Parts: sequence; structure tokens; C-alpha cells
Amino acid sequence: MTDSPEYLKKRAFFDSLLTIYGRKPVLEALQDPSLPVHKLHLADSNRKDQLISRIEQLAADRNIEVAHWDRKGLSRISKNARQDQGVALDLALPKYGSADRFLQENSGAHYELLALDGITNPQNLGMIIRSACAGGIDGILLPKKGCAQIDPLVIKASVGTLFKTPILRCDQLGATLAKFSEHGARVCALSSHAKDTLGTLDASTATIFVLGNETHGVSPAVAKSCTHRIRIPMQNDVESLNVAVTAALISFRHQL
Amino acid sequence: MTDSPEYLKKRAFFDSLLTIYGRKPVLEALQDPSLPVHKLHLADSNRKDQLISRIEQLAADRNIEVAHWDRKGLSRISKNARQDQGVALDLALPKYGSADRFLQENSGAHYELLALDGITNPQNLGMIIRSACAGGIDGILLPKKGCAQIDPLVIKASVGTLFKTPILRCDQLGATLAKFSEHGARVCALSSHAKDTLGTLDASTATIFVLGNETHGVSPAVAKSCTHRIRIPMQNDVESLNVAVTAALISFRHQL
Repeated sequence: MTDSPEYLKKRAFFDSLLTIYGRKPVLEALQDPSLPVHKLHLADSNRKDQLISRIEQLAADRNIEVAHWDRKGLSRISKNARQDQGVALDLALPKYGSADRFLQENSGAHYELLALDGITNPQNLGMIIRSACAGGIDGILLPKKGCAQIDPLVIKASVGTLFKTPILRCDQLGATLAKFSEHGARVCALSSHAKDTLGTLDASTATIFVLGNETHGVSPAVAKSCTHRIRIPMQNDVESLNVAVTAALISFRHQL
Repeated sequence: MTDSPEYLKKRAFFDSLLTIYGRKPVLEALQDPSLPVHKLHLADSNRKDQLISRIEQLAADRNIEVAHWDRKGLSRISKNARQDQGVALDLALPKYGSADRFLQENSGAHYELLALDGITNPQNLGMIIRSACAGGIDGILLPKKGCAQIDPLVIKASVGTLFKTPILRCDQLGATLAKFSEHGARVCALSSHAKDTLGTLDASTATIFVLGNETHGVSPAVAKSCTHRIRIPMQNDVESLNVAVTAALISFRHQL
């Protein structure tokens, strides 16, 4: 089966959906008029409490489509039956997409991406998105597991930039980085023990900067797909920087 | 009276003392062997509970001088009778000092400082110290009022860099900046609305970068002492950056 233009368009649309869940998070998202909402999902089993009534009211006010499900159906949407509290919301983020699609569309192009490996603190994830967006990075590779997921804390810490930043989802970061590398990208692990500094990289090659967990650094599985190791030069024997600061220094380095 | 060398040495030592207070904070500081402790202060009125016993034990183990005071005497040390819980601790930080002394010793020199105006979040203050230290900034002007004060949260967020960074205390930031300006320093308020960018500053003049509160920016009283207004250029219509990220971009801009 060849992918028809119709099918590709549909797939691109579904790639751009970010589903959040939980009563409080969904309510907060509905209250933010800047968030482009696609659809509200409710479980039939929900008791009509104040929060649910408020959510339904906001959806009606904003003319948002509502789908009703049994508990099982809703948990297929939220992918988190334990924490969804019978409520999920699809956000349609224009710049939210898949790493594979980005690679298809940008093979051979000169781009700079950040790849996040084990960034578990929502505050840091939000700050990384904000700094990368302001610094003009071309996208953020965010694996489906191992990092903080995009939730209201992250949305808040990103201060309105989440919806302007290409967030590129992938399943396994290591495998995805290997694919980018096969297509000519330089994959650089940031490490305070690296010999080469950020400044030694020539600017002519597509480059992915891999940021690891603040305590443990880049994980072994992901490190295998890295082709370079670099560090940011530091004074006063300081050993490390906050990961969001590192992201900012990378993102802004051509502009300071 | 002329200042004798003996007097100046003593004054420099007392300038380097940072007094923290409260049972938990003092206990945590005593447990950190990297912190250079000068003296422990205890109120006679303290009930001997587990925390106090543990504090006394640690002081004895580390051979730290202990001074005993009545409640009033202790509150003169802590300068915070409400929150000291009868306990205070002097840390002797080699790089902690006064803005006035820095100016005396560095008049005519080429230096770069950060000045903090209304940075109330301890997490941000700690991150600013960490980034500034790693980026090699020459000091941080920290007024005695209006900013988060150096407490265990700040110490933790600075990840071991507080003791390597010249923290320059002053009473009124606006007046202090005016003095620096009279001695030839350029005083730059960071503001996203400024016309000139960071990159337009020539590197040959002593410069102070004034960072304001994240919500309200630089306060009117401090803005009066600023001789320049500059901004960091941002992409994607992003309006502002986290203040610790701004501090990092300033501190690292010669090295990226």
C-alpha cells in the first residue's frame, strides 16, 4: 500500500496531537485560550462533581467536540487509566510531530536539534523548551519513555513556548539517533569529561546535542549512538551546569 | 582615625562571614564538611531536644567554637529573632565580601559583575551563582534586602559553587550601582524591550549587568542608576528567558 496524500495528511495531524489527562490539568488547559484544543474525552462513569461540570461548561463555551467513552475506552485514549480520573484532552500542537517525519523531510538539510535522555524534572523540561525556542533550535527529540512527559507543570515552565517549538517524539532515543547518524547528522553527547569543547564544532553539519540526566549523564544505551563527546568549558573547577542552562548555551551560541 | 592594617584585616574577615540560622539549616551546614564554619551561636533558653544535641555534637566533633547568649544576644547575631530558633552559625566564606571593598580594590580594573534586583526565588539565586561561577563572572552584587537570602535552598541549588563565587553584599543596590558608575563602570539593565543587544557592548569597559525580578523586571529605584539598557536577542517571538538562563548567557558569552 502506498501512502496516499490523504493518509499522510491524516497521519501528520494525529502526530500533532498531545493528549493530557486528569481533571485539574484538563481544566487548566481549557482555561488557557492560547492552547489549541482538538477534542475532550470523558468517561461515562464520571460522577458529576464541580470540576467535571466546569470542564463541560468550558468545552461548550469554546465549542469543543466532546467524546464519551466507557472506562476502558477512555484509558485507551489517555494511556494512563490510573491517573486519568476519567478525563482526557487532545491538544493540536502545530509543531508537535514525529522524529521519523522530521528526518524524512530534512535529510541532507543543516539543522540543530536537542535530544533529551532521562530529563525527569518537569521544571527542567519546561525551561529547556523555553530556552531552545528562544535560541532558535530546530527541534527537541523527546522519547516516549524516560523523560518527564508534557504535563501542566512543563507547560507552565515553558512559559508559552511549547506551542512554538518543534517537539519530535520517538520510541527509542538510541535507535532514532542511530538513524539520524546514518543520514549524516553528527550526534554529540554533552559530557563534562569530554576532551573537545562546544566551540570546536564546525557549524556546517547537521548536529544533535544529547543532554543526559543531571545525576547520571547520558545513558549507556544512548551513548552507543553518539558519534562525538563534547563539553562546555567551565571556570573555577565547576563540574557541571544545570541541564536547562546547558541547553540555553547550546541554543544561543551563534547569537551572543 | 586611619585604618590600621590590623583593622582592615579584621574588617575583611568579618565581611566574609555569612550567618545562617534555624535548627535545620544549621544542622545541615554542619553536616557538610566542605563548608568552612567559623562559630556556632546558641541561646541559653534552648530546650535540649534531639536537634540541639546533634548540633552540639557535630560542633564538638569538628572542633568548632561555641558561643552562648541570652535570647536577645542571639537575635543580634541572627538578625532574625522570629526565625532563628535560638541557633545561628557563622560560615567563613573566603569569597564573600562587601561591594564597597570590591570597588576600592578594583577601581579602574576591567571586571564584569552581575547585580541582582528582586531575585526572590532561592532556586534561581542558586542557579545564578552556579552559572556565574562556571562562566567566570567576577562577582555578584547581592543587596541585603529584596532578594532571596543565602539559605540552605540556595546553597543546595548552587551545587558547591557558593564558596567559589565572590558574593558582594550591599545595602541599597541603586546607590551602590551609582557609585560604581561614578568610578567608570557601565551599568546595564537587562530588558526585553531594550533597543541594543548584548552583542553590541564592546568588551573593554568594566560592566555590571542588572537582572531584575522575573515578573516585574528591574525596579524603578535601581533603573535610575542604570546607564544602558540591553536585551538578549530571541527568536520565535519569545518574550523572556528564565533569569538564571539570562545570567548564564551573559557569563559564558565570551567563551562559546
